[in-house]
Amino acid sequence: MFRNQYDTDVTTWSPAGRLFQVEYAMEAVKQGSAAIGLRSKSHVVLACVNKASSELSSHQKKIFKADDHIGVAIAGLTADGRVLCRYMRNECINYSYTYESQLPVGRLVVQLADKAQVCTQRSWKRPYGVGLLVGGLDESGAHLYYNCPSGNYFEYQAFAIGSRSQAAKTYLERKFENFMESSRDDLVKDALFALRETLQGEKLTSSVCTISVLGVGEAFHILEQEIVQALINEFDIVGEEPPADETAAPDTSSGAGAGAGAGAGAGDQGNPAGRDVAPMDI
Amino acid sequence: MFRNQYDTDVTTWSPAGRLFQVEYAMEAVKQGSAAIGLRSKSHVVLACVNKASSELSSHQKKIFKADDHIGVAIAGLTADGRVLCRYMRNECINYSYTYESQLPVGRLVVQLADKAQVCTQRSWKRPYGVGLLVGGLDESGAHLYYNCPSGNYFEYQAFAIGSRSQAAKTYLERKFENFMESSRDDLVKDALFALRETLQGEKLTSSVCTISVLGVGEAFHILEQEIVQALINEFDIVGEEPPADETAAPDTSSGAGAGAGAGAGAGDQGNPAGRDVAPMDI
Amino acid sequence: MFRNQYDTDVTTWSPAGRLFQVEYAMEAVKQGSAAIGLRSKSHVVLACVNKASSELSSHQKKIFKADDHIGVAIAGLTADGRVLCRYMRNECINYSYTYESQLPVGRLVVQLADKAQVCTQRSWKRPYGVGLLVGGLDESGAHLYYNCPSGNYFEYQAFAIGSRSQAAKTYLERKFENFMESSRDDLVKDALFALRETLQGEKLTSSVCTISVLGVGEAFHILEQEIVQALINEFDIVGEEPPADETAAPDTSSGAGAGAGAGAGAGDQGNPAGRDVAPMDI
Amino acid sequence: MFRNQYDTDVTTWSPAGRLFQVEYAMEAVKQGSAAIGLRSKSHVVLACVNKASSELSSHQKKIFKADDHIGVAIAGLTADGRVLCRYMRNECINYSYTYESQLPVGRLVVQLADKAQVCTQRSWKRPYGVGLLVGGLDESGAHLYYNCPSGNYFEYQAFAIGSRSQAAKTYLERKFENFMESSRDDLVKDALFALRETLQGEKLTSSVCTISVLGVGEAFHILEQEIVQALINEFDIVGEEPPADETAAPDTSSGAGAGAGAGAGAGDQGNPAGRDVAPMDI
Amino acid sequence: MFRNQYDTDVTTWSPAGRLFQVEYAMEAVKQGSAAIGLRSKSHVVLACVNKASSELSSHQKKIFKADDHIGVAIAGLTADGRVLCRYMRNECINYSYTYESQLPVGRLVVQLADKAQVCTQRSWKRPYGVGLLVGGLDESGAHLYYNCPSGNYFEYQAFAIGSRSQAAKTYLERKFENFMESSRDDLVKDALFALRETLQGEKLTSSVCTISVLGVGEAFHILEQEIVQALINEFDIVGEEPPADETAAPDTSSGAGAGAGAGAGAGDQGNPAGRDVAPMDI
Amino acid sequence: MFRNQYDTDVTTWSPAGRLFQVEYAMEAVKQGSAAIGLRSKSHVVLACVNKASSELSSHQKKIFKADDHIGVAIAGLTADGRVLCRYMRNECINYSYTYESQLPVGRLVVQLADKAQVCTQRSWKRPYGVGLLVGGLDESGAHLYYNCPSGNYFEYQAFAIGSRSQAAKTYLERKFENFMESSRDDLVKDALFALRETLQGEKLTSSVCTISVLGVGEAFHILEQEIVQALINEFDIVGEEPPADETAAPDTSSGAGAGAGAGAGAGDQGNPAGRDVAPMDI
Amino acid sequence: MFRNQYDTDVTTWSPAGRLFQVEYAMEAVKQGSAAIGLRSKSHVVLACVNKASSELSSHQKKIFKADDHIGVAIAGLTADGRVLCRYMRNECINYSYTYESQLPVGRLVVQLADKAQVCTQRSWKRPYGVGLLVGGLDESGAHLYYNCPSGNYFEYQAFAIGSRSQAAKTYLERKFENFMESSRDDLVKDALFALRETLQGEKLTSSVCTISVLGVGEAFHILEQEIVQALINEFDIVGEEPPADETAAPDTSSGAGAGAGAGAGAGDQGNPAGRDVAPMDI
Repeated sequence: MFRNQYDTDVTTWSPAGRLFQVEYAMEAVKQGSAAIGLRSKSHVVLACVNKASSELSSHQKKIFKADDHIGVAIAGLTADGRVLCRYMRNECINYSYTYESQLPVGRLVVQLADKAQVCTQRSWKRPYGVGLLVGGLDESGAHLYYNCPSGNYFEYQAFAIGSRSQAAKTYLERKFENFMESSRDDLVKDALFALRETLQGEKLTSSVCTISVLGVGEAFHILEQEIVQALINEFDIVGEEPPADETAAPDTSSGAGAGAGAGAGAGDQGNPAGRDVAPMDI
Repeated sequence: MFRNQYDTDVTTWSPAGRLFQVEYAMEAVKQGSAAIGLRSKSHVVLACVNKASSELSSHQKKIFKADDHIGVAIAGLTADGRVLCRYMRNECINYSYTYESQLPVGRLVVQLADKAQVCTQRSWKRPYGVGLLVGGLDESGAHLYYNCPSGNYFEYQAFAIGSRSQAAKTYLERKFENFMESSRDDLVKDALFALRETLQGEKLTSSVCTISVLGVGEAFHILEQEIVQALINEFDIVGEEPPADETAAPDTSSGAGAGAGAGAGAGDQGNPAGRDVAPMDI
Repeated sequence: MFRNQYDTDVTTWSPAGRLFQVEYAMEAVKQGSAAIGLRSKSHVVLACVNKASSELSSHQKKIFKADDHIGVAIAGLTADGRVLCRYMRNECINYSYTYESQLPVGRLVVQLADKAQVCTQRSWKRPYGVGLLVGGLDESGAHLYYNCPSGNYFEYQAFAIGSRSQAAKTYLERKFENFMESSRDDLVKDALFALRETLQGEKLTSSVCTISVLGVGEAFHILEQEIVQALINEFDIVGEEPPADETAAPDTSSGAGAGAGAGAGAGDQGNPAGRDVAPMDI
Repeated sequence: MFRNQYDTDVTTWSPAGRLFQVEYAMEAVKQGSAAIGLRSKSHVVLACVNKASSELSSHQKKIFKADDHIGVAIAGLTADGRVLCRYMRNECINYSYTYESQLPVGRLVVQLADKAQVCTQRSWKRPYGVGLLVGGLDESGAHLYYNCPSGNYFEYQAFAIGSRSQAAKTYLERKFENFMESSRDDLVKDALFALRETLQGEKLTSSVCTISVLGVGEAFHILEQEIVQALINEFDIVGEEPPADETAAPDTSSGAGAGAGAGAGAGDQGNPAGRDVAPMDI
Repeated sequence: MFRNQYDTDVTTWSPAGRLFQVEYAMEAVKQGSAAIGLRSKSHVVLACVNKASSELSSHQKKIFKADDHIGVAIAGLTADGRVLCRYMRNECINYSYTYESQLPVGRLVVQLADKAQVCTQRSWKRPYGVGLLVGGLDESGAHLYYNCPSGNYFEYQAFAIGSRSQAAKTYLERKFENFMESSRDDLVKDALFALRETLQGEKLTSSVCTISVLGVGEAFHILEQEIVQALINEFDIVGEEPPADETAAPDTSSGAGAGAGAGAGAGDQGNPAGRDVAPMDI
Repeated sequence: MFRNQYDTDVTTWSPAGRLFQVEYAMEAVKQGSAAIGLRSKSHVVLACVNKASSELSSHQKKIFKADDHIGVAIAGLTADGRVLCRYMRNECINYSYTYESQLPVGRLVVQLADKAQVCTQRSWKRPYGVGLLVGGLDESGAHLYYNCPSGNYFEYQAFAIGSRSQAAKTYLERKFENFMESSRDDLVKDALFALRETLQGEKLTSSVCTISVLGVGEAFHILEQEIVQALINEFDIVGEEPPADETAAPDTSSGAGAGAGAGAGAGDQGNPAGRDVAPMDI
Repeated sequence: MFRNQYDTDVTTWSPAGRLFQVEYAMEAVKQGSAAIGLRSKSHVVLACVNKASSELSSHQKKIFKADDHIGVAIAGLTADGRVLCRYMRNECINYSYTYESQLPVGRLVVQLADKAQVCTQRSWKRPYGVGLLVGGLDESGAHLYYNCPSGNYFEYQAFAIGSRSQAAKTYLERKFENFMESSRDDLVKDALFALRETLQGEKLTSSVCTISVLGVGEAFHILEQEIVQALINEFDIVGEEPPADETAAPDTSSGAGAGAGAGAGAGDQGNPAGRDVAPMDI
């Protein structure tokens, strides 16, 4: 009851030195459909689960191109993600226009993080509600970053965010030591296997996922659906029936939001982290 | 009781990572009279139920022209919709003046969504309370988008929004696989049939609906009332008596707002999703 | 009790997707003295009940001229109405100065509605508390619009707003099918009869009403009191004794505000919709 | 108890469509010492009760000159009134400098009302707490207006505002039919008699009142104290002992503020509308 | 309990039409050490009680020179008073630079009052917490004004403000009829006697008071301490032992703030209007 | 309980005319480590207790140079003090650059006080939480001022502020009559003795104090530690064991903050005015 | 319970003169992973514990280069720290561009502190949630400063901040007297030993820490991982098993935040100062 006093304004610290509004925004990332990134020495693969709000609609676009050498996969509030991707696209264009070379990935990631930090220090704004997996290739090789609502960023070998991402992370942790030397096709294969982990008893088909690749000699592009389906068939990947409750439980209970979620459960029960369309189409 | 703490300010996140004010704004869309969109390869048909606040008044205009190749049907707060349509009209005019070609539909839809996103991240604004079905034709063919208050947009083959739209969506889901190859006239016919589904026991006449068409070689225009009536007669479409309570129930209970609606029921009972004029003439 | 949480700020949505502050502003229109508008093919008649705050004062002006071809009758907060009429006057003058022709009525009405919409989307403003019946004549004929605080507008054949307007609306609904072909004088006659309906047991005399006319070949003007009295005498219109409680009851209970009024009754009982001067001289 | 929710912010509507803060500001007018205005065809007389906060001080100035042809008497917050009178003076000067003629009274009154209206629609301001009786003479004759905090104005034959003004209004209502043809001196006489009504058992002397006159051939000026005393003696006006409680009671209970006053009585009892200096020297 | 709802914001009216924050600011004046002003036809004397916060400090300056012909004595928040006096000094300098004559006293007083009024109508400011006795000499003779936090001003023959000023006012009321014809020295003598009344049983010495004089042929100046002591000795003025409680009681209970003070007594008891240094060194 | 209503906003007056937020800021001064100032005719000595937050750190700088002729010792929020000292330094430099002479001490002190006053009259700021002892020498001799958070300033012969300053003040009050004629070295000696009073049972060594001197022919400078130690040895000053509780008690209970401190004791007990590092390193 | 009234706004003082929001921000520093700084006459060593949010990610960068002669180690909100380090980098570049010499360390530290102070005095901002150990070398030798969220800074011989820093501080206090004369390699050794103290039972390896050095003739640089591992091996440093609970307890209970932490414990228990990833990746 008392803690709530400090969690309605992004510029208010709790007595324990926490910014609850920032933590709550990070919960929005967990509600989005899963996104996965992997990199080898020379390639980055970004993948995500497609979520269509109805049979009638195409799925929402969750993987964006920032430049030929940089791609982004998002989880969380799609509208926030789209606005940030547009920002990244502009930065890339301006840089290459000015310097006639490509914007280094790490620099773009820092600018993006600084933009997010500002939203955590002004009372009339709110933190962005989206996580971004930024994959890129520059003179220092292939990179994979995760930018989160708090204004932080992390470099990863492989990572998964969004709904039921814990299962994918477990898969990636088991395998990541080989990724550095993986071929492009093995990366894609691992991406598909990791993606399958996030599908609770659903069959993996080319229509429920999007896969993008960028690497040495290969500009960022999204694989066509037939190619993805061919790969799925080739690898014989089908959705297993994971012990749903157990997988979901650790996912929900990991991280700082768990206590919060419990406390606020009475009000927020309407949206369990299930397969339903999330309330804000995130 | 506790959840209410996070639902009065659009820049406040709930502990579960939700923006309640954005979700509430999406409820306003559900209260507006129904709007329907369908597209084939070459045509887009937008239709809506006309709602007159009294016998003495003409109905409110709910379908707008943005340009010769783009039309919009709205559901929700009419005043918000009108303001957004004016914005679209201006963008179309400026683009064609500058580039001497027509603004691609997808680009306009993104600009519209970005404009809506801004209203979800400033404490002194409110999200728009209107959903827009944007139909258009450009070099990449016919398109149908749905822009919602959260700043998201979706591409659809066919879609229905607004009051009692669930019945229309059910109809469209049954039929949509043929739409791509439909003739213009079949599209209109299906629009009329879908529209009829939203009329709870009311007869479908040309006076209670508006139909617009745009397509290859056919600039956006609203069909004249006589033509619509002729089509209704020709197709012999009359309003069936749908099992009202059942249809309405799933509609209300679908989506994230259901829990909210239940919680706030005590206060908001005055406006059941019935046939009455909605409180804000939406 | 719970609903009150969402009704003190114009930028706050209720869980059911309503903007209560906008609805409350529309209640202010119902508290103003009645205004009535009718149109035929060629003429528009605006009429209103005069309300003087004391024997010593002249009545408040409630019918304004925007231009030779446009007049306005208001109900609600007179000060808000006056400010909006000044805006309309300016727009008319600027248009005719620039284009050397008269501002089309429909265009002015849209501008007025857009101005009202802005006040419903800024936290430091409030919606206007006035309804405007805008009558005008342009190349497309005679028009009658109703602009309301929500930023909406409607076109009408005939309409009545303000205190006890329900009785007048009932009269108009009975008669409106003939209005299109009515002569100017018949319109005035019907306006007087409709006005009489809003006078609860009070005698209709030229001193309690104002009548204005505009039409083909007849610029907007307010009829002189003697002429109005002569018409009243000629038509032998006197205030009947309507079954006061019944008439008032439907009036109060119609529309969305009814539930609200009931809920807030304890606090607002001081101003029944009687003959007394309304609290803000509206 | 519930109503209080809507009465602390000038931009918040109550469920019944009222702006309580505007109504409360109008209560401030009732607390000021009385001001009276009368007009004939050719003259306007403004009068007010002088209130000195102690024997040691001169009384506060409550009648101001705006221009040779316009004068103002105020009741309520003197500081607000002074600021508004300065505004009027500036407008008069600017107009005559630009057009080389005198600013018509009605136009000045509208500008003043518009200035007051703005203060009722911005959350960071407050409505003015002063009522102004504006008397003036222009080509259309002598005028008397009352501008109130809501942004409204009214034209009067004669009017009284402020503390215990009800008794004066009763006097004026009995007599006003002769005012139009009254001579200048009869107007002054009636002003003195009306003023006497507001003095609860106190003797009318030249030191407790100020009288100003403007008219055809007579620029606005305040009568000197000896002249006023001479008139009082001549007319033999002395303060009668009015049945104090009865007079005061209707005064307090008239108008919309009554219910409010009752509800808030517990807190505001410290300042009965008696002879004491009002809390803000209004 | 209910009244508190209206007393935390300077732009909020109470139901009875009062601005409590303005009234509370006027209480600050009563807490300051006493200041006294008197004038004859040709001279103005300003006097105040010196209050040193400790033996080690000099007393705070409470009498300021605005120009050769204008002086100011303050009671209340010294910091606010100092800022206002600087404003007055600037106005005097600018006027004499521009017009090569001295700024009339009344005009300066109005400007000062207008500056105070602004602070009562903006939500992000607070009313000044200081009262100013402005004495001056210009072509229209000697003047004494009192400017208070509400934006009002009053002209006085003689006046006292601040802590225990009631006793001084009683003295001045007994004597003031002779002041107009008083010699400069008699004025000073009366100032000293009045000052003595405010010293509750304390001896009047030159160290506990400051006396300033301005008049015809005598620019504003503060009397040197020896001269003041000589006068005290000459007039044989010593502090009598006034019946302390009785004097204090009427002082506290006079004025509108009394009820407020009583209501808030539980919280504010820490600072009785005694001899102690006031909490803010006012 | 009721008083708390008025103590969270610096622009809110309490019913008794107090600004609690300003008073609370003055409490911050009392929590800082002690600072002491003394002056003779020709010299000013500023001294303070050094407080190091740990063995590993140097002590915080609490005595600053504003110019060759002005020094400052602070107690309270060090960060606020540092910002104000920088302001003073800039003012001194600008003045001497413009006028080629030194800024008079009194003028700088007024500017500083005005800067502090502004922070007590804007809702989006807070009062500074620091007290400044400003010592300086100019044509009018040596001066010692105390500037406090309320925007007030006082001139002193000698003064002590901060934690346990009461004991030092008692010492200074016993001695101050001789200070005017003291030699520079006697002043330093008295400063050391006064400082010792504030050390509750702690030994006075050169490492726990800083001493600065400025005077005729001696620009402001801080005495080197060896010199201070030599003086301590010479004067044989050691920390006596003062009857701790009694000394502390009057200190805490003196001044207006006492009642406040008592009322808020439950929440603020964590920081008794002991030897511990204050919560904000003040 | 009562204290909470003063701890949600950074511009609100508590009755005891504290700014709780500033104190809470300082708690955020305690939650970050540990950072340590040491200096000799000629060298500064900064070290920190690396924290990777998962096996898949690289650790977050917590040591930054500001210029060749200045380095920074942070603990707390990484995003805030990064933004401040960018500011420092800009200041260094601008200074050397303008003056062609290196920015003195102390001056940069003051600018940084002033930037932090501003965030403690504006209602629409929040204090930075990061502590910075700034090490640098300039003409006055090697320096080590600690800048904290309150806008204060301290110079240290050696210091440790962040989670479990108390153990490291104890180590440093035991050793610091030798640091001044330490060789570069001894400093690094002591840094490693101190760092080991903060690892609760975890083995010290080169992968869990980062070490940077700057000194005479040695620009700021981070030691490569192999070199660090070689040193660890050489010194034979392994993580001992410290009596975990006891070490942690004094750490948590030291400082002003202790009482606050206790009071808010119910809400904040979710994040014990354990090894888990802190809620905001700080």
